[in-house]
Amino acid sequence: MFESIKTVPNGTVTSVKGFEAGAIYAGVNKNSPYRLDVGILYSDTACKTAALFTKNKVKAAPVLLCQQLLPSNKIHAVMVNSGIANACTGQKGFKDALKINEMVARAFELPVDSVLNMSTGVIGKRLPLEQIQKSLPHIKLSNQGGHDFARAIMTTDTCTKEIAVRVEDDMGAYTIGGVAKGAGMIAPNMATTLCFLTTDASIETETLRLCLRKATGLSFNMISVDGDTSTNDTIMMMSNGRAGNAPINVRSRRLRLFQHCLNEVCIYLAKRVASDGEGATKLITVTVIGAVSHKEARQIARTVVSSNLVKTAVHGADPNWGRIFSAAGRSGATFDETIAELKIGSVELWGQGAVIDFDIKKVREELTATEVAIELKLNIGNGKAVAWGCDLSREYVTINSEYTT
Amino acid sequence: MFESIKTVPNGTVTSVKGFEAGAIYAGVNKNSPYRLDVGILYSDTACKTAALFTKNKVKAAPVLLCQQLLPSNKIHAVMVNSGIANACTGQKGFKDALKINEMVARAFELPVDSVLNMSTGVIGKRLPLEQIQKSLPHIKLSNQGGHDFARAIMTTDTCTKEIAVRVEDDMGAYTIGGVAKGAGMIAPNMATTLCFLTTDASIETETLRLCLRKATGLSFNMISVDGDTSTNDTIMMMSNGRAGNAPINVRSRRLRLFQHCLNEVCIYLAKRVASDGEGATKLITVTVIGAVSHKEARQIARTVVSSNLVKTAVHGADPNWGRIFSAAGRSGATFDETIAELKIGSVELWGQGAVIDFDIKKVREELTATEVAIELKLNIGNGKAVAWGCDLSREYVTINSEYTT
Repeated sequence: MFESIKTVPNGTVTSVKGFEAGAIYAGVNKNSPYRLDVGILYSDTACKTAALFTKNKVKAAPVLLCQQLLPSNKIHAVMVNSGIANACTGQKGFKDALKINEMVARAFELPVDSVLNMSTGVIGKRLPLEQIQKSLPHIKLSNQGGHDFARAIMTTDTCTKEIAVRVEDDMGAYTIGGVAKGAGMIAPNMATTLCFLTTDASIETETLRLCLRKATGLSFNMISVDGDTSTNDTIMMMSNGRAGNAPINVRSRRLRLFQHCLNEVCIYLAKRVASDGEGATKLITVTVIGAVSHKEARQIARTVVSSNLVKTAVHGADPNWGRIFSAAGRSGATFDETIAELKIGSVELWGQGAVIDFDIKKVREELTATEVAIELKLNIGNGKAVAWGCDLSREYVTINSEYTT
Repeated sequence: MFESIKTVPNGTVTSVKGFEAGAIYAGVNKNSPYRLDVGILYSDTACKTAALFTKNKVKAAPVLLCQQLLPSNKIHAVMVNSGIANACTGQKGFKDALKINEMVARAFELPVDSVLNMSTGVIGKRLPLEQIQKSLPHIKLSNQGGHDFARAIMTTDTCTKEIAVRVEDDMGAYTIGGVAKGAGMIAPNMATTLCFLTTDASIETETLRLCLRKATGLSFNMISVDGDTSTNDTIMMMSNGRAGNAPINVRSRRLRLFQHCLNEVCIYLAKRVASDGEGATKLITVTVIGAVSHKEARQIARTVVSSNLVKTAVHGADPNWGRIFSAAGRSGATFDETIAELKIGSVELWGQGAVIDFDIKKVREELTATEVAIELKLNIGNGKAVAWGCDLSREYVTINSEYTT
């Protein structure tokens, strides 16, 4: 059976057949004038669309609205704004979200039930609807517009997160594209951050939802910047079927490859989000093997990568490995340091119940790199997991002490 | 019925009849030469002693040893060192802890099973036993020595945490004293940090343990500095019965007052630990009322006070109240922002499902104070809880990037 997976050079959501996008500065984000803050992602063909949402009990208005409208098989457009989250805005905020869908439907001549919107930014402020309405007709959609869309959804991100992969097997070819934003308020245990995925592969809506959930479990649910989870986090996928294939469903032979590629796309974007964490200077990868179960492995990996003490030690390239054990020990999962093994990069630090006489200079070198790998082998069972995060710097504190001001 | 509770001026563990203490620089803590790093707390009469320990699966050697020896009714002395935690030191570390008890027993002419020891500091290093042994005979015990003992157990603490209260009722008088250390690796959900409590009130061992657990649940389990829990955390109480009262037990009329005073002592010490968190400039008090249950109230209070985003906002006096709702929403407890009310200090920010048109200057003033009070009224049930924490500063990052180096 023939299979080929290729990363599309400079790929993004609009690298996928039939998708266009565009963005504009509408004046939502008053802190960053002239920065794109409203984007549209559009498909000429109606899309099967599924999404996962924040597990926070406090959900932003657009999240509540999207939850009502999805899954759907008739979505054409999603509007996203940055700067204001439209969260904790009560019934008025919910009406604002409804009105935005109407405004987008009118501007792009679409049925209102084919439109969604999402927001990210400060909590508790109302959106400037009039400004958004005025701006919409000026957004130019194009198949190059994914890059602008990726920029428009950024808040404290320092770079866009974009990717597209072209997949081919003996039954034909399709593309999966994705953009994400992140930086702060990011934590495991949810569809963290905003992420929009596109594909021209035809796939049944329920299968799409299941694939999305699986990919999120391995990617966005395994990253942490600061342990906080947002009111707006959403990961959404649109499939317009323009590849012309027979719809993929849970019984399809092609499902495995589709899932694999979607996982890779999501892991790439999630790692980009983690390494662009607020104030981050390093990507931390924590690999746990030999845990009682995958679930317990995930628990340990996430606790270690989320520990402020581990994050600050990595930031200072301080080989204070005891903090890794301490975090693993408080994760709630089974952990026995007398049989565990610990590696930082290629250096073994602990094994057979005792510290290994390791080269402290080498550990420091590993910790000074921009990618730091921590590996914990528990020697109890077959559970495996990988989590990603970033170091904790003074810059994180600076950014978050002055966010709304 | 007559009741009087008075704080003892300059009170500490040795303000209690029959208790003496002393400390010395033994050279355990090489980073801080000439700082007291070994302390002894001693009672001339054998003590009923109970303790609560860390819930971390990785437990330091002295914790494992104390767990074997307690509860006991024959304890005379506890040795505590700072600088090295004797954690992740395997069988050798456990033997070191055993040897320390033997050394202390010999130096102070005590039965070996009347001695305990505890450690705090860097994980993964062995204790310098010989240096400790040499130093022990030079420790001078006195009823003023509690202050030195409090200093000897400090690590990154910037001040000692000490208190004593004298309690009197129509059946007689007794005293409760306490010292604690904290600063980093402090989180809810355990007998956080080190705390040593003394009393001359006679109390049955099992009653003592129950009182200690209750007091800890209201105090040390409700503070957070960085969400990390240590391998060494211990809260221990010694009762030498020198007040001569009939032993307090669960049926005693005097139990309520004893419990109340112990709660107050523990809350005082826990708040001192929280406000002296690493790099902290402010004490944050989060009060939750009207939750489904006390348990859910605790969950919310602890999640809010532990949120890096709330902590940085308070640090920068940034009235970014949405982060408080976001933290409450992800706590797992029932939370409905449409009926909740929020106050910072005396300023009402949110009620009846909408932002109140509050004076931003006044909120900023409240957030600039050294004590910041956040109050969440949920209007669902009768659950109440208070949690304490501190702001997150650049200084926290600095301290923890360079701890072992």
